Amino acid sequence: MSETGTHHQPTAEQQYTPIPYGAPFAAFMLLPIPSTHSYKPPKKYEIGSGSSTDPKVVTCFNLADQDGNGFIDDKELQRFLSSDNQIFSLRIVHLLMYHITNTNTRVLGPMEFTSLLSTLQYWTSIFQRFDKDRSGKIDSSQLEVVLQSLGFSVSPVTLDLLVSKFDKSGGVEKVIEYDNFVGCCLTLKTLTDMFKEKETNNSGSATFTYESLKLKVLPFLIA
Amino acid sequence: MSETGTHHQPTAEQQYTPIPYGAPFAAFMLLPIPSTHSYKPPKKYEIGSGSSTDPKVVTCFNLADQDGNGFIDDKELQRFLSSDNQIFSLRIVHLLMYHITNTNTRVLGPMEFTSLLSTLQYWTSIFQRFDKDRSGKIDSSQLEVVLQSLGFSVSPVTLDLLVSKFDKSGGVEKVIEYDNFVGCCLTLKTLTDMFKEKETNNSGSATFTYESLKLKVLPFLIA
Repeated sequence: MSETGTHHQPTAEQQYTPIPYGAPFAAFMLLPIPSTHSYKPPKKYEIGSGSSTDPKVVTCFNLADQDGNGFIDDKELQRFLSSDNQIFSLRIVHLLMYHITNTNTRVLGPMEFTSLLSTLQYWTSIFQRFDKDRSGKIDSSQLEVVLQSLGFSVSPVTLDLLVSKFDKSGGVEKVIEYDNFVGCCLTLKTLTDMFKEKETNNSGSATFTYESLKLKVLPFLIA
Repeated sequence: MSETGTHHQPTAEQQYTPIPYGAPFAAFMLLPIPSTHSYKPPKKYEIGSGSSTDPKVVTCFNLADQDGNGFIDDKELQRFLSSDNQIFSLRIVHLLMYHITNTNTRVLGPMEFTSLLSTLQYWTSIFQRFDKDRSGKIDSSQLEVVLQSLGFSVSPVTLDLLVSKFDKSGGVEKVIEYDNFVGCCLTLKTLTDMFKEKETNNSGSATFTYESLKLKVLPFLIA
């Protein structure tokens, strides 16, 4: 497990080892991550220069858009992200769509889809470093390191809470599957954004009115 | 729709009209609400004098405890709260159990079960005033009035968010079923408690550190 802070072209092993994500997304994951993204989460809607017309992204979009209506709905995105072995949870598909669109409309156009691929590509690349056998799972002791690599600060108490939520066995097996790893990242990203938006002068404290707290937390619960 | 601030013995109509909640819980709902509870939510774990040995509560507990092990698990509670016509959502059963126990253990002993009945009895009694035909549903225009009766302050924006979450059609039909009404109350209650705990001197503002925000919001998402 080495963290060098750089991204590399996929190795031959990566190119030929089946990975447990949806086949089109798996193919996408073999693309190199733009070096501008290294160790910084891509900003929402920030699309690398020319990436909206990247033919590989267009191919992914067209594969995901099964009914060809020019939009990706939640079921299409679920199929795109699921593999034969692992169904990507619809709840986390909805969280993802909410995270990208800030609405509950549950459809993505090409721009939003590109943004979603960029976010997922970043998180998944780090997940894959720990998921050596491409099982689509990491154990809870690895989760803390992965989250720290992604820049999330997690105390032991927070980590326990996350594992009790995102381990499908409720914390018994302490194994985090790929879809729940994405859910975990989304949760921490949203809480971090919520905090930063209300933090005053890097004071380490964020102040909410009753209404602003409801308006921040409810959409998150609602997605 | 009259709100007199007093509770009455069940009418003959209430006694003989089937209601869409689980039969044992429906029977429990026919009990008069203790007058000490009128229009104030019962405090968590606050059990009325002698209510822990109330034979009707004991009967309810024994009906719910189908395997007779002395504890109510999530599936048992779901069956207890479901009727032939409406399955009470397991997600909201989990939220309820978390609300009562502050843990994810998902079992209730007699004390917690009594507390849960007390909380539900209060919320349900107000819901029933609007659910005149005992369909187990109210419309979204009634939701605001019900929530206000329960002491929750809801702005139009908050109400829209709640309806988009708790209407099973995603806000199209604008109908709130009984289980989602309970989920809605739990959500508002938790957010209100979270705010009040961190509010300083009734200032209208609550201050969180990054860690305290995570520790407050995560368990809520986790339940």
